[in-house]
Amino acid sequence: MNNTFTAAVLLIGDEILSGSIQDENLSHIAIMLEKVGIRVRDVRVVPDLEGEIVDAVNQLRGKYHYIFTTGGIGPTHDDITSDSIAKAFNVKNVIQQDIFDEFQAYLDSKGIEFTKAAQRMAHAPEGAEMIKTKQAALPGYRIENVFVMAGVPRIMRVMLDAIIPKLEAGKPILNGSVHANVREGAIAKDLETIQQAHSEVVIGSYPQEINSKRSNYSLILVVKGIDQNEIDLVCKKILKACLDGGYEANYPSN
Amino acid sequence: MNNTFTAAVLLIGDEILSGSIQDENLSHIAIMLEKVGIRVRDVRVVPDLEGEIVDAVNQLRGKYHYIFTTGGIGPTHDDITSDSIAKAFNVKNVIQQDIFDEFQAYLDSKGIEFTKAAQRMAHAPEGAEMIKTKQAALPGYRIENVFVMAGVPRIMRVMLDAIIPKLEAGKPILNGSVHANVREGAIAKDLETIQQAHSEVVIGSYPQEINSKRSNYSLILVVKGIDQNEIDLVCKKILKACLDGGYEANYPSN
Repeated sequence: MNNTFTAAVLLIGDEILSGSIQDENLSHIAIMLEKVGIRVRDVRVVPDLEGEIVDAVNQLRGKYHYIFTTGGIGPTHDDITSDSIAKAFNVKNVIQQDIFDEFQAYLDSKGIEFTKAAQRMAHAPEGAEMIKTKQAALPGYRIENVFVMAGVPRIMRVMLDAIIPKLEAGKPILNGSVHANVREGAIAKDLETIQQAHSEVVIGSYPQEINSKRSNYSLILVVKGIDQNEIDLVCKKILKACLDGGYEANYPSN
Repeated sequence: MNNTFTAAVLLIGDEILSGSIQDENLSHIAIMLEKVGIRVRDVRVVPDLEGEIVDAVNQLRGKYHYIFTTGGIGPTHDDITSDSIAKAFNVKNVIQQDIFDEFQAYLDSKGIEFTKAAQRMAHAPEGAEMIKTKQAALPGYRIENVFVMAGVPRIMRVMLDAIIPKLEAGKPILNGSVHANVREGAIAKDLETIQQAHSEVVIGSYPQEINSKRSNYSLILVVKGIDQNEIDLVCKKILKACLDGGYEANYPSN
């Protein structure tokens, strides 16, 4: 797919590596970015260790148009994302005075003490652009092509909504899908032939678990591209190949 | 945590990068491995592109004791994991004759044609040790410290169950958790003090979404380690800090 931008996502936190929390941010980020023509091409999950975060940020930021991080910007000892991002850019992690003042006023209004630990959340790497939202008490931020967001999904989503208008957008990535009752092995040759004839779309083949919520069929064939007419054409070819083989199939399905 | 082994997980597939499918394999792998003393320390998600898979495998396999891959071992054009793993090890992706024969007999018994595409699933890198299971028609495999598994969660789990007895195990990683109604900022200093006094455990702090299924409390403090007595002691210190601060808290909670 030409005319699209690329992104990497860096999920920061021991809790994801250990299975304590099942990440649900990645799929949301990927879906939201595709709508503005940005494809996620690389994802890393790293522990709460400065060296690992610094290495990952520096490996990724030169390779993709945009990097999005989640997690590690709270007040506790294991929240070291801002310190690590600052180190990756070789700048200091400094207080953001207007954020500090606003947050202090917010806490004062609620009668909550602004602890030393909580004050760390009003820091960001020197040169960062803070990205405020109406819904979250504290902002995410951008430094060069790296966007730093919270790990809690509800807050991450608010921050991402505020970030997206700031991104240079490509052509939206569109989808079509054919649902079919066919084994992958029986349709693989047809899929390959169709894929070769349409190199501007990407055809994916996803077997479904029995009793999947997603489909009553055993296989979903997803076609992604930037031209709806071509996606339609490819889906119809896949549908025909399934039906010609004597298999049940359905398009459009969503 | 000493006496533990390390692992990386490589999730292969455009469908995860694009958000078409929300991965549920990582958390299962991490939880199962911790039970046998293996900690996941790095996770990558890569697209169905040979160069990306080869690079990731070669970066990871020298850095961790074990690498686990999921996805890309089916029969379709985008299933290129075995070709890529072979390339990473600089060997050929070759037919596994006994697997081929067994799968042929299985398909024959069901009256299903053994297509050229399906035959690709009976290939694995030269030197690989096939890891058969009773439940899955085709096996995963091991080459050196890299374990290759299916992406469909039901099949991946069966393969992992067959792999785990083959791993050199460390001391099982144990957990304790305190649930509390406290803002992270208010308890962060206490947590840091406790963490510093107990460097052999790892304390994680996880704010919960409102109406979370996981807890009626707003914050979960998770303590991981290999010594149950130390975990208990640390949890009790955290509980005391919460209660002393006037916050509701609960331990043991699971």
